Amino acid sequence: MKTVPHRLYLTEEQMPKQWYNLRADMKELPDPLINPATMQPATEADLYPVFCEKLAHQEMDNETRYIDIPEEIQEMYKMYRPSPLIRAYNLEKALDTPARIYYKFEGNNTSGSHKLNSAIAQAYYAKEQGMTGLTTETGAGQWGTALSEACSYFGLDLTVFMVKASYEQKPYRKAIMQTFDANVIPSPSDTTNAGRAILAEHPDTTGSLGCAISEAVEKAVTTPGYRYVLGSVLNQVLLHQSIIGLESKIAMELLDEYPDVVIGCAGGGSNLGGLIAPFMQDKLLGRANPQIIAVEPASCPSLTRGRYAYDFCDTGKVTPLARMYTLGCGFIPSPNHAGGLRYHGMSPILSKLYHDGYMSAISVEQTKVFEAATLFAKMETILPAPESSHAIYAAMEEARRCKETGEAKTILFGLTGTGYFDMTAYTAFHDHTMTDYIPTDADLEVGFAGLPKIPGIQE
Amino acid sequence: MKTVPHRLYLTEEQMPKQWYNLRADMKELPDPLINPATMQPATEADLYPVFCEKLAHQEMDNETRYIDIPEEIQEMYKMYRPSPLIRAYNLEKALDTPARIYYKFEGNNTSGSHKLNSAIAQAYYAKEQGMTGLTTETGAGQWGTALSEACSYFGLDLTVFMVKASYEQKPYRKAIMQTFDANVIPSPSDTTNAGRAILAEHPDTTGSLGCAISEAVEKAVTTPGYRYVLGSVLNQVLLHQSIIGLESKIAMELLDEYPDVVIGCAGGGSNLGGLIAPFMQDKLLGRANPQIIAVEPASCPSLTRGRYAYDFCDTGKVTPLARMYTLGCGFIPSPNHAGGLRYHGMSPILSKLYHDGYMSAISVEQTKVFEAATLFAKMETILPAPESSHAIYAAMEEARRCKETGEAKTILFGLTGTGYFDMTAYTAFHDHTMTDYIPTDADLEVGFAGLPKIPGIQE
Repeated sequence: MKTVPHRLYLTEEQMPKQWYNLRADMKELPDPLINPATMQPATEADLYPVFCEKLAHQEMDNETRYIDIPEEIQEMYKMYRPSPLIRAYNLEKALDTPARIYYKFEGNNTSGSHKLNSAIAQAYYAKEQGMTGLTTETGAGQWGTALSEACSYFGLDLTVFMVKASYEQKPYRKAIMQTFDANVIPSPSDTTNAGRAILAEHPDTTGSLGCAISEAVEKAVTTPGYRYVLGSVLNQVLLHQSIIGLESKIAMELLDEYPDVVIGCAGGGSNLGGLIAPFMQDKLLGRANPQIIAVEPASCPSLTRGRYAYDFCDTGKVTPLARMYTLGCGFIPSPNHAGGLRYHGMSPILSKLYHDGYMSAISVEQTKVFEAATLFAKMETILPAPESSHAIYAAMEEARRCKETGEAKTILFGLTGTGYFDMTAYTAFHDHTMTDYIPTDADLEVGFAGLPKIPGIQE
Repeated sequence: MKTVPHRLYLTEEQMPKQWYNLRADMKELPDPLINPATMQPATEADLYPVFCEKLAHQEMDNETRYIDIPEEIQEMYKMYRPSPLIRAYNLEKALDTPARIYYKFEGNNTSGSHKLNSAIAQAYYAKEQGMTGLTTETGAGQWGTALSEACSYFGLDLTVFMVKASYEQKPYRKAIMQTFDANVIPSPSDTTNAGRAILAEHPDTTGSLGCAISEAVEKAVTTPGYRYVLGSVLNQVLLHQSIIGLESKIAMELLDEYPDVVIGCAGGGSNLGGLIAPFMQDKLLGRANPQIIAVEPASCPSLTRGRYAYDFCDTGKVTPLARMYTLGCGFIPSPNHAGGLRYHGMSPILSKLYHDGYMSAISVEQTKVFEAATLFAKMETILPAPESSHAIYAAMEEARRCKETGEAKTILFGLTGTGYFDMTAYTAFHDHTMTDYIPTDADLEVGFAGLPKIPGIQE
């Protein structure tokens, strides 16, 4: 094994020039999207009113294995990438583990997370198609910030529907988006039919990603020159995020390393799908057999306690239906501080891979997550985002198991972002006022009861 | 000229193993510190009650040109260094300038600034000497955060006196320090004699760095096993911060570049002194003649409107006296948002170099600074700290002059940190509620009238 530096940065020449499309190597593909207007499989053209054409194509493209990253996107990637692959020497020491722990740190940019990787791509294709504006939703605010930066860079207008819980917990996130000229609206709002309907039914709701999606889609399809973009769940997003895994794999190869375990937090699946992409490829092609673990909040356990079923991607039921692990699009998660993981569903690609046994999943209570986050911060001097800290928790548990068994496993996890805008949560943890929320089976049944009926497919 | 990547990171092997001590090459040294108890030049031993012995030695060492960085400090540096040297391609394009703009970005760590470079060194030497705790003051909160991280890493207690204006503007900064187990107290406080005296005279003061220093020093000298550490002004701090300039110079050499102009923001001088160190050496030794520019806030213009005189480093008059550019230790600056630049004096080393004509200085109103910051954020996708944005403003002005004259100058500036905890200020700028504060000559006379009398030296 080579000497491993604390932080390994690829050179610009070593950076990937293509994204990797995991679907091209899957033995069985995810089930097709269903158009809610016809209840038939959606075509690429069905998506055009909502998505830019090239993005709609990427969404449906199950065959092209490698897709060239346009020059303009590569240029903007170079403004904050490559992100470092970091060896967690101090954390290893603190845990007294024989395991070697690596993490891919995506938080060293103003959006504070990996979200910029797809924001840039989606804004670029919108500009290329002559659009004038975009709409989106944001949970923790990281996606909204990322898209604000990308739209400002490419000269596009942007309206962001921000989950009300986050809007109130994170006023500074809103201020950053405004610095990049975005129009930020707390969701549910009275500016859309979808928002008004949800407010009528649940006047005190603190919102959810699903609900904010409905509002953003409605605004996009009713505003000329606008399209909608989404920061997670979609196949196109996982495609763009494959840059995380591709860079990680190249960096590990330079160190003569290969992960025995790959761990990512999972909300809609954007980071997890991107991080694991090339390692899952190895697994699908029988070249290697890394263990792959998704970590989700106990308050919103779509993989570990959800149903594998067709469901809307949003609360307002305006999006296509996807077959995925879901808690039901009517499920409104309790206000866990990891706003970015408060989503009722899960990427259809990841759902299928999980369903077919290629990866495992665990769920964790937030107090345990913040305990891990605090230790990590002290050891590694990076204050992690609550979302990312789910992966930290699982990596630490794995490293502790290695201590018991004596195995010197190589662990790779995704540190998706920083927690600078999550200090309300850290303070709650510090003051012992943080509590855990675990839905009861009865709570979940309410969400499942609302799963849509699709004639001949899901009765 | 070689192809210049957007971001250049040195490898661990290329990182400097020694700090550079600018004093060893100065033609004339700064005047000695004066012990306020004796009104005679202070000895190294005079400093021992306040500073750790090795740091007191570094403070007084005018001769050793290069000082080895202890292994343990190098190890912790590797957790967030090297910091990137970034070519501002997009900013150049936006300004349509023939100039080549580079910046050394020190904000990619949880402290959010360059302050960690000296915090680690000072905490290390305290631990080595068997101390159990440290005290300090913090303005913008970056130094306090940095020291919290360093103390947590080395297992030391820490009490931080935080300038009240910042404590109120930046509650999240306080929360981060608490995450790293620091005890954070708003200054002036009623926990010290110095704080109580200031509160009695100015009950409504929002505090100042000078005042917080008095409190921190008092707490250190009255608590067994404690020492005081300071994040700026001191010679030892400039020594540790020379890592910024040394890395910058190595990176520029790899690109076959050398700066015509080096620009840094200046509060107490820690970043500026560190950034310019090796370039000033070239100037002192006649090897090159880069222009060196300090940029300070118009609200606290120590270099541009201050007096070169002996003064206390703190408001409470408990520290040694230093000859420096000062507004008088009784000067309480108006609440400019760049809390890190609200200091009445300036590093004695930089003061001497400025006095002797080796560098120039300008002052800027904060609204202009935030205008520059916002453009920079949009172009470079990094949200800069208000402090750093003073340097951005000056670099942009220089690049605009190059556009007029057609000169293709190479500009290097220090981007000391990120503005994630300064969103209150960005919001004020965005909402047009931000105003400028420029002290009148009469305001300054009040500060100058309080300059100390030193028999035979300053009557």
